[in-house]
Amino acid sequence: MGSGYKVGVPPKKNLFAEFSDAVKETFFADDPLRQYKDLPKSKKIWLGLQHVFPVLDWSRMYSLGKFKGDLIAGLTIASLCIPQDIGYSKLANLPAEVGLYSSFVPPLIYAVMGSSRDIAIGPVAVVSLLLGTLLQNEIDPKTHPQEYSRLAFTATFFAGVTQAALGFFRLGFIIEFLSHAAIIGFMAGAAITIALQQLKGFLGIANFTKKTDIVSVMKSVWGNVHHGWNWQTILIGASFLAFLLVAKYIGKKNKKLFWVSAIAPLISVIISTFFVYITHADKHGVVKNIKKGINPPSASLIYFTGPYLSTGFRIGAVAGMIGLTEAIAIGRTFAALKDYQIDGNKEMVALGTMNIVGSMTSCYVATGSFSRSAVNYMAGCQTAVANVVMSTVVMLTLLLITPLFKYTPNAILSSIIISAVLGLIDYESAYLIWKVDKLDFLACLGAFFGVIFSSVEYGLLIAVAISLAKILLQVTRPRTALLGNLPRTTIYRNVEQYPDATKVPGVLIVRVDSAIYFTNSNYVKERILRWLRDEEEQQQDQKLTKIEFLIVELSPVIDIDTSGIHALEELLKALEKRKIQLVLANPGPVVIQKLRSAKFTDLIGEDKIFLTVGDAVKKYAPRVVENV
Amino acid sequence: MGSGYKVGVPPKKNLFAEFSDAVKETFFADDPLRQYKDLPKSKKIWLGLQHVFPVLDWSRMYSLGKFKGDLIAGLTIASLCIPQDIGYSKLANLPAEVGLYSSFVPPLIYAVMGSSRDIAIGPVAVVSLLLGTLLQNEIDPKTHPQEYSRLAFTATFFAGVTQAALGFFRLGFIIEFLSHAAIIGFMAGAAITIALQQLKGFLGIANFTKKTDIVSVMKSVWGNVHHGWNWQTILIGASFLAFLLVAKYIGKKNKKLFWVSAIAPLISVIISTFFVYITHADKHGVVKNIKKGINPPSASLIYFTGPYLSTGFRIGAVAGMIGLTEAIAIGRTFAALKDYQIDGNKEMVALGTMNIVGSMTSCYVATGSFSRSAVNYMAGCQTAVANVVMSTVVMLTLLLITPLFKYTPNAILSSIIISAVLGLIDYESAYLIWKVDKLDFLACLGAFFGVIFSSVEYGLLIAVAISLAKILLQVTRPRTALLGNLPRTTIYRNVEQYPDATKVPGVLIVRVDSAIYFTNSNYVKERILRWLRDEEEQQQDQKLTKIEFLIVELSPVIDIDTSGIHALEELLKALEKRKIQLVLANPGPVVIQKLRSAKFTDLIGEDKIFLTVGDAVKKYAPRVVENV
Repeated sequence: MGSGYKVGVPPKKNLFAEFSDAVKETFFADDPLRQYKDLPKSKKIWLGLQHVFPVLDWSRMYSLGKFKGDLIAGLTIASLCIPQDIGYSKLANLPAEVGLYSSFVPPLIYAVMGSSRDIAIGPVAVVSLLLGTLLQNEIDPKTHPQEYSRLAFTATFFAGVTQAALGFFRLGFIIEFLSHAAIIGFMAGAAITIALQQLKGFLGIANFTKKTDIVSVMKSVWGNVHHGWNWQTILIGASFLAFLLVAKYIGKKNKKLFWVSAIAPLISVIISTFFVYITHADKHGVVKNIKKGINPPSASLIYFTGPYLSTGFRIGAVAGMIGLTEAIAIGRTFAALKDYQIDGNKEMVALGTMNIVGSMTSCYVATGSFSRSAVNYMAGCQTAVANVVMSTVVMLTLLLITPLFKYTPNAILSSIIISAVLGLIDYESAYLIWKVDKLDFLACLGAFFGVIFSSVEYGLLIAVAISLAKILLQVTRPRTALLGNLPRTTIYRNVEQYPDATKVPGVLIVRVDSAIYFTNSNYVKERILRWLRDEEEQQQDQKLTKIEFLIVELSPVIDIDTSGIHALEELLKALEKRKIQLVLANPGPVVIQKLRSAKFTDLIGEDKIFLTVGDAVKKYAPRVVENV
Repeated sequence: MGSGYKVGVPPKKNLFAEFSDAVKETFFADDPLRQYKDLPKSKKIWLGLQHVFPVLDWSRMYSLGKFKGDLIAGLTIASLCIPQDIGYSKLANLPAEVGLYSSFVPPLIYAVMGSSRDIAIGPVAVVSLLLGTLLQNEIDPKTHPQEYSRLAFTATFFAGVTQAALGFFRLGFIIEFLSHAAIIGFMAGAAITIALQQLKGFLGIANFTKKTDIVSVMKSVWGNVHHGWNWQTILIGASFLAFLLVAKYIGKKNKKLFWVSAIAPLISVIISTFFVYITHADKHGVVKNIKKGINPPSASLIYFTGPYLSTGFRIGAVAGMIGLTEAIAIGRTFAALKDYQIDGNKEMVALGTMNIVGSMTSCYVATGSFSRSAVNYMAGCQTAVANVVMSTVVMLTLLLITPLFKYTPNAILSSIIISAVLGLIDYESAYLIWKVDKLDFLACLGAFFGVIFSSVEYGLLIAVAISLAKILLQVTRPRTALLGNLPRTTIYRNVEQYPDATKVPGVLIVRVDSAIYFTNSNYVKERILRWLRDEEEQQQDQKLTKIEFLIVELSPVIDIDTSGIHALEELLKALEKRKIQLVLANPGPVVIQKLRSAKFTDLIGEDKIFLTVGDAVKKYAPRVVENV
């Protein structure tokens, strides 16, 4: 029972249509102009403005009820962000006030341009560490603090430019080349590296290594045993860390008590600062004076010329990409939870603009923070107004209470950072990756060990390399499968997956599970011939019918290039020498068009190309099918 | 009429088996140990020796008849290679004798270790140009000829090490990442660049630019009009070029007269040398003295320490890879013509060893030459003995007649090189690529213009980048298709390819044409939802049945990773909100296993996974199928 159908050849598109289709699918997959269709011009302009400034859209529906949610959420994340900002700015080797500045201006810009309702904007641990490591390779922050800050603003500027450009040119898909598994490993490694860095403040070590790998840090830690760790600091640090972890555990166990974990850091800061203030316990190991007042302008500090221009660009581009990866992942996660859409490219423009403006107002790279966004969501935020509330609190802090922080012990900040970054270690996801895909897990491990044993940049490089290598390997060594007939049907399936499937005597049916490209064309040809050789050997042993037909099932072959067609020609020649006929089944639209253009259809004969494997078997081994 | 079969889940392999299968398929796809199976140990050793030195195998069957073929072929390619070697060594900025040395030792090594019967070994134009350009960026060959030669031998050594290592570690598939189209473009660009370089000798220009891009060369040429081109040289060069091109045309038109084109260069050299000798026509513009005698040792000249070590390694690695690409392509082409097998990895070891030995005997990078191999094949070569014959002739030339070359005009060498490299411009293949695949053609053009407008290295970089970008793009934006039912069958096919295929009311059937990976998981999800949105809009317009089922045909989905499963989960959630049920059809062995590991099968329900689209439609839209 053949289908009676011939393989269809779709109408040939002209070059321009083909090209514009490809461009559209690559860059405008989300069809951003759909909503502008059939509208008057004034409406189009209004929609366009709304597109750039989503605040124009959601602010019209804003209500007092929503503001209540935003107010509470904003206050909660503000209490969390102030101590974190001070700690993270240290990771970036920048003064503490720069961390606070970065939680004031960027969230305001994002509130106007961003489309995520749940993201909390500000400095984050991983980007701070990355920036700190890359910048101190260029300038020593201790001896040249001014040049260091200038380079940091330069990098921030170019991080913003990179982000905005990726979004504007709709190249957002580039960040998707960093695989989920690699990010999990990278984040966990960065978390451990950051936690280890905190041993400096935690143990009160004066001469701490500048390197971030675990070996150097551990040497530094043990090397300082003799110089004496500061036992008071350790005691204070350890007890507050315990307090923070308990608070975190409570927040995790009972979702309603999430605020316990959210305000625990601020409470630690207040208690410890008060304690130091009244006891004058320790003149050392406390936060240095934080400058009072809001962000000074810094546009004139950015290096637009000179040798630091390209350095700043390079560092900024890397930090900007990592920042994007984090922000987009957060945006998508919460958008999925609340069922609204995030336009990745638009988000990138918003984040980029925010960092460009930030670089001119003494901020360093800000992005979405995992921990604060989660708290924001649980505290019931409704819109980006929560970010405005947080920003206002940070502004008031800068104007009024920064002098008090000079009594805050460093050990407390270290505890807060440790407890925050531990949340970046997502062992559940890592376990799931292990269960589902071992090669993915290898990428995860590679990124993880790269970060902790070498450096953040190197770990990142490993993560990207493994992610790409995995794709390329799959394209180089695609799977092939031997097909058999499911009894009493015309269906042919992989004999490994379906033990019932029986081979057809005298016919070998092979399915190629990939596009046939220059990377794999030679392998595919050789592999098909190896299937044939294996099969012929088996048949000689068992004295079965000689193979006369080789059917290649092309359903999964979604594309072919000139090398691929060349490989098919070679396969045809090799088979002709063995007196075996080559038959093709179900070539897709692109494949059949290219086979025709290259005149391969004439070479093999149109009568050798079938709609289904079943049709081909019916024609060339009719006895088998009669039994159906 | 459902098939009555369930989706099969193949038996789960343990981790080790899975891993070793993957390693085997990646590195030992050609199953090199197959022939050693079930053999006594002594036989295995003998086979192993034969594996490394194929000469042990074929020499036992060698006969006088075969030698006749090899002798004629060897003499023919020797006559071709001597003038070419002298010319090519100039492209590499090396003394002419080094070119001849490289046609003496390397072919002998290859004859013992190589497995191609038709390849002709020696210096080639493209590698010479590449090496020359890269080396002169480091050391000026005019002011420091000794250091330059030493760096050239160092690069040759590491070219050999790279080639042998790639073969030994079975990483040969790496060179397949350079696509056919990119190679065609690169070669054509290199040919034009080389031809332009010959204008120096051809026009007798003294102050010629060191750059290779077309703009600089043309400036150099016109800038020297006033200084006067050398009209005698031009006349001699042009007339011999015409002679060579006519000879080539004759050889191409009548395959039996191929020898006309093969010996034309040597005849030109002899005539012109004789002419200069008797007329003392020109003291300038002739080949400098060529040192008499065979290869002096050069092992001690290689830089194994110092700053030039890493430079030499870098240049060698690039030149080695390009050399490999050319040699392997030639080997495969002629093996296919004569129907024997070439083991790519083994060939690489042979080519690598040959260059390592070459670097110690004053040779520069040698590889297989397109033009000489073709002549070798047409002259009836039988085995690698043709290379031995050629090598012997070169040796005799070095010992006896090199002093005569000092009367050979440079213009003749330029003509020979121009006529040789014109054969590298394969416009027929380029036209075929244009017809079959426009994006491939873009890669071809990119490599071509990169070489002629910038430099050989840059063109190479463009070629590799476009080749990789093409793969990555395909993995990022895979095709999806809407399926319809072919009337009176249970077959579902792409509605664009089969206009007969009709959509099933109330059911949307989408096929995803690629593995679902982190690079495309988000796109695939969004794209499926866009198909749904488009369809729903159409149905609202035409007042058709509401869609209740979305069937995703997974036949071409050969793999899925954690990001992919995550995307399916999000798709499921999005559909649940619209009260549409998600149904999967024909997941492959890997996909079904991973879906199970990740418990996605529980989430969607085992009853929503079908063997074929037909089965799924039968269950959920039975009215449609009743009409069959």
